[in-house]
Amino acid sequence: MRTLATEIPRHVGSDVELAGWVHRIRDLGKVSFVILRDRSGEVQLVLDQKPTFTHESIVSVKGRVATNDKAPNGVEVQVSELTVLAPAEPDLPVPVNQDPAKLSLDAILDNRIVSLRIPKLRRIFELQAAIVAYFGEHLRSEGFTEIKTSKLIGTGTEGGTGLFEVEYFDTKVYLAQSPQFYKQAMIASGLERVFEIGAAYRAEKHETPRHLNEYISLDVEMAFIESERDLIELERRILKTIFARVAEHQGEILEQWDASVPSAEEVDRIPIISHEEAKEIVSKRGGHKVFEINPEGERILCDWARENRGIDAIFVNEFPRKKRPFYTYPLDQKTMSFDLLFRGLEITTGGRRINEYAMLLETLPKFGLTPEGLPDYLSIFKYGCPPHGGFAIGLERLTQKILGLANVKEASLFPRDRRRVRP
Amino acid sequence: MRTLATEIPRHVGSDVELAGWVHRIRDLGKVSFVILRDRSGEVQLVLDQKPTFTHESIVSVKGRVATNDKAPNGVEVQVSELTVLAPAEPDLPVPVNQDPAKLSLDAILDNRIVSLRIPKLRRIFELQAAIVAYFGEHLRSEGFTEIKTSKLIGTGTEGGTGLFEVEYFDTKVYLAQSPQFYKQAMIASGLERVFEIGAAYRAEKHETPRHLNEYISLDVEMAFIESERDLIELERRILKTIFARVAEHQGEILEQWDASVPSAEEVDRIPIISHEEAKEIVSKRGGHKVFEINPEGERILCDWARENRGIDAIFVNEFPRKKRPFYTYPLDQKTMSFDLLFRGLEITTGGRRINEYAMLLETLPKFGLTPEGLPDYLSIFKYGCPPHGGFAIGLERLTQKILGLANVKEASLFPRDRRRVRP
Repeated sequence: MRTLATEIPRHVGSDVELAGWVHRIRDLGKVSFVILRDRSGEVQLVLDQKPTFTHESIVSVKGRVATNDKAPNGVEVQVSELTVLAPAEPDLPVPVNQDPAKLSLDAILDNRIVSLRIPKLRRIFELQAAIVAYFGEHLRSEGFTEIKTSKLIGTGTEGGTGLFEVEYFDTKVYLAQSPQFYKQAMIASGLERVFEIGAAYRAEKHETPRHLNEYISLDVEMAFIESERDLIELERRILKTIFARVAEHQGEILEQWDASVPSAEEVDRIPIISHEEAKEIVSKRGGHKVFEINPEGERILCDWARENRGIDAIFVNEFPRKKRPFYTYPLDQKTMSFDLLFRGLEITTGGRRINEYAMLLETLPKFGLTPEGLPDYLSIFKYGCPPHGGFAIGLERLTQKILGLANVKEASLFPRDRRRVRP
Repeated sequence: MRTLATEIPRHVGSDVELAGWVHRIRDLGKVSFVILRDRSGEVQLVLDQKPTFTHESIVSVKGRVATNDKAPNGVEVQVSELTVLAPAEPDLPVPVNQDPAKLSLDAILDNRIVSLRIPKLRRIFELQAAIVAYFGEHLRSEGFTEIKTSKLIGTGTEGGTGLFEVEYFDTKVYLAQSPQFYKQAMIASGLERVFEIGAAYRAEKHETPRHLNEYISLDVEMAFIESERDLIELERRILKTIFARVAEHQGEILEQWDASVPSAEEVDRIPIISHEEAKEIVSKRGGHKVFEINPEGERILCDWARENRGIDAIFVNEFPRKKRPFYTYPLDQKTMSFDLLFRGLEITTGGRRINEYAMLLETLPKFGLTPEGLPDYLSIFKYGCPPHGGFAIGLERLTQKILGLANVKEASLFPRDRRRVRP
């Protein structure tokens, strides 16, 4: 019966069996100390022989637990039997038992299979898994249904640019940029409240610390709303759940990364300002008039919110019509739309959508679109669709900003960018 | 404040506000009865006027709740005010308020956007969402971490056949057939226990009721196992959780489909027979000697299990080496592998994987592979990988078999097959 490393302090004086990775070896001649790593954490082994195995080899051991003030967690295992289950070659491409801060991003990503063994890096994805779980948990508690929609689409709802082409038998299809069309179809189906956790693809030639060509989109869509403000309040509730659960259960990961999450009270304080006001703040602080909010503007707005509201986040709403997709619900020349900027980065875009068929038909030509080009999309509305809207949170960006990672690629297990398609 | 249809019985004598879809209209001249549908269910409205709206229009109503023995659930709402929020065109391509059994599969799928409004069809996906939630819930309770891995891969672990090609900037990549490579990488990273709920792609020209070219794979991988029997026991535990929760919370959906789920005691009774024995049973019952288990054989084996063990499911293990991928752990000429057949259909394939680097290097040439062709895959094992294995459950197949659907495409929201890439 295997015992996990973190359970060892409960077994002082007893014989235990352990299995895991050889994390660190200290050979003192007659005795050697080995740190064994497993999914729970680390524990010190004491061997009365020279170690004959390499770092990262998989071993199983039997031994007795003893207290030792100098050992991690105050305990160690005096090994009576050790078996190498799978030896590791000694030429590790990156060191697993050192601080990854010394490694370049390229070294980390080029050697992803090995660098993910570095506990601090692996834990990014333990946090990410927790975020996914809390997101779903919260939405289910509000009556939302999880959907899984196709990522192979005939044409993009947002136009044909930025789409990856797929050879599909005798035809060509595209990788979906978002589940927008399908989320709306499910609203009209009567589910009313849906969410999807799925991949989204953008064939954009970005080379920035904020872009991925494949990312996980946390998508939400909700019927019977009045404006984007209902969505902003929903997002506050979701974030409060995620942050509270992370603080409760992932405290150790936050500590390792010297990170923290906002409190519920802070999330309630996130201000909502219009795109017009946002431009004014950025113009004033940046020292020159701006016409749109670029990454520098996003940082300025978050600074402003931190100074004025004590929270490094801000909702920007009422974007002008020409800056949003055709399906965004108009409000004169503006729209019922919003972004959430968190710690200097846009992590959410959303808004109310046009749900009236007549309004949609009237809107299409203004965006250079025709009803003939969007028959499936229009059939959502032709047969009655309630007022609704939604938003999407970028999972990697949220993970990045919670932990304070410099590049969003650090928050993707196997990131895809223009040059990187492996491992 | 909106009240949901199923909450109405709790508000007899009170004024309520409702919103939803016009499901059915019965116009009796001076009075008309309307069934209003929302995400929770249906409720009868009584109007003292001729209805001026069409089926499927979205309406909001105010009225008083009264008892009526002839109304569904014994209550109805006497409407004082009705607003059409979004009118529906009258030319519905499929009827929403009739039994979908009369519709052909093509009629359902060609008009998917509208056919999903048919409550009985929509509920397939409410069940599917529940399965996804229970699967994750169970695995998290056993210490598994959810992962999200790239679906854009340089080459297939299983060879180059059956892959969809993607134009990726100046190069070509493929849509992943499974997260096999990445699941194993995460085992080696030290997470030890991982699961993924994600899309898988098979570019196979099947035209059968059991195949999809894009499906959702419920993938599991676990370290420190001895053989495929540990995986079979894990799958039993997962299925017991899913079935028990579905029986508890989705009873109404099961009833609507005249379906049921096996009890925990029945899941424990699912027999494990070797591939050799399985062939003998199929040969004997089918009346001619078989050399592999085809779909007819799968049905025969499930019949055999039902007659002999009282459960319409069977685990088949120890497949011969040449019938399994190169990475399957060998057991002489057989392998530590298994399938689960449920109600006549294979819903799971899995097995222990080769984890020793030397054994893997020795195996590759037997399958016509070279180390040079799989550098990333081999680096998982080069630096030490514990004994491990895993399996994948096809979400649509599991949904199909729980509800007794004739075709797996009925269990995919927007199915993709050789001819179908929309909606």
